[in-house]
Amino acid sequence: MPFVYRRTIRFADTDAAGVVFFPNYFAICHEAYEESLATDRIELKSFFGKHGVVVPITKSQAEYLRPLTCGDKISVTLTPTLLGSDGYAIDYDLHRLGRPEKLAARVRTEHVCISSRSSERHVLPVALAAWIRHHSA
Amino acid sequence: MPFVYRRTIRFADTDAAGVVFFPNYFAICHEAYEESLATDRIELKSFFGKHGVVVPITKSQAEYLRPLTCGDKISVTLTPTLLGSDGYAIDYDLHRLGRPEKLAARVRTEHVCISSRSSERHVLPVALAAWIRHHSA
Amino acid sequence: MPFVYRRTIRFADTDAAGVVFFPNYFAICHEAYEESLATDRIELKSFFGKHGVVVPITKSQAEYLRPLTCGDKISVTLTPTLLGSDGYAIDYDLHRLGRPEKLAARVRTEHVCISSRSSERHVLPVALAAWIRHHSA
Amino acid sequence: MPFVYRRTIRFADTDAAGVVFFPNYFAICHEAYEESLATDRIELKSFFGKHGVVVPITKSQAEYLRPLTCGDKISVTLTPTLLGSDGYAIDYDLHRLGRPEKLAARVRTEHVCISSRSSERHVLPVALAAWIRHHSA
Repeated sequence: MPFVYRRTIRFADTDAAGVVFFPNYFAICHEAYEESLATDRIELKSFFGKHGVVVPITKSQAEYLRPLTCGDKISVTLTPTLLGSDGYAIDYDLHRLGRPEKLAARVRTEHVCISSRSSERHVLPVALAAWIRHHSA
Repeated sequence: MPFVYRRTIRFADTDAAGVVFFPNYFAICHEAYEESLATDRIELKSFFGKHGVVVPITKSQAEYLRPLTCGDKISVTLTPTLLGSDGYAIDYDLHRLGRPEKLAARVRTEHVCISSRSSERHVLPVALAAWIRHHSA
Repeated sequence: MPFVYRRTIRFADTDAAGVVFFPNYFAICHEAYEESLATDRIELKSFFGKHGVVVPITKSQAEYLRPLTCGDKISVTLTPTLLGSDGYAIDYDLHRLGRPEKLAARVRTEHVCISSRSSERHVLPVALAAWIRHHSA
Repeated sequence: MPFVYRRTIRFADTDAAGVVFFPNYFAICHEAYEESLATDRIELKSFFGKHGVVVPITKSQAEYLRPLTCGDKISVTLTPTLLGSDGYAIDYDLHRLGRPEKLAARVRTEHVCISSRSSERHVLPVALAAWIRHHSA
């Protein structure tokens, strides 16, 4: 069950071309990720510290299909996928709402779980694996 | 009747000190301003162009009382005040929600209405003056 | 001849994890792109308007190899490649300077030239094609 | 002896109005502050931790006199002033370079030194007080 996050495009998201600055799509997707974790009671601020791990992003990519401008209403549909026992990917589809709704961008991030102590790869905490299963396709 | 905007603090708002980076308080307040205008049917993207004016910010100031961290829920209470016929100030109170709610910051911006054609001060469009009266203290 | 841009990591680039926020690598690479164009006398602000084209980014991707923290000195090595007559890619290697120098990230953006009038693909302006040849591998 | 920092306005600094987004003036000034500290061998990343203090910004203000656009070359002149034994203000003048040079904005931040342990006001570390004297008017 993918997670859907709704958002209005803000002036702060835009650049002098009048549209959302391309790096900001990633920041918007990260908001959706934070909101999804929070909804499943995983608090970003303390969760990773408590489990002695970090889950840095190792890769990101985006495909930009339509520009977004200030005031646009969008939805971000987030779908995580397990990558082995110590990593996951998240695919995000950004739609500009309205009639008709249009796909504006596709974004993907990849994450690896690392032990804070040893700096080596570490199996995902149970709650995080459960979050992935909850929302995977 | 002040306008109240609710917001969650995001990772993108923070810096390496673990709290919201001080310029980002202004960006968060501008979101509240955009949302308040949109709620009163003033669309930022087209409104100023249609009226042949711009309303740049001429001054801004902030007082930081408590740090905000990722995941914090906040409210931004926005109160505009007319400054003559061609300008206005907006005062923003940012509260961190919870028990008890705490005042985290006070922000103020000042705006002047300028004719796009002549670059001289210009009386506020009627809809914008109505928005100010609607929300002023 | 690749273009090399030097930069210090700033507090504004970082997030609450203490390192550069992953979308900001793209913004840093775009700075290198702007600086490279300016060095070859292509002024971003006016160039595209004068030629009646825009050159939006259609894809971006990054691979993050090492975290960057506030105060780090980095170099961004930019190498453009023609993609047909109406597009190009730019590859960026980000190194953290010091002894030894370390590869911190690899970033790539893809750009397509579009006519502002017709919204259709348009051959690259001569000066932009020359910039690509000047810096391609 | 004020410290002078030079900077080019980047696409990332701008918004859909085509000019620097007003909160970003504060981020640009903070860069000048970081660069000035680094030049006097105060490394932001480790300095405050080593001295057991933090120096949060308690107030900020800006006056915007002229818009800045992508590609503009600016200088930021930074002048700190002691405020008692445990605080300081920094005044920043931003000029747009060219002929003639023009004052674009005036910015001010106020900082208070706090003990990380007790959360109470704490006298400034000697090196920081020396930096203030070095650059004060």
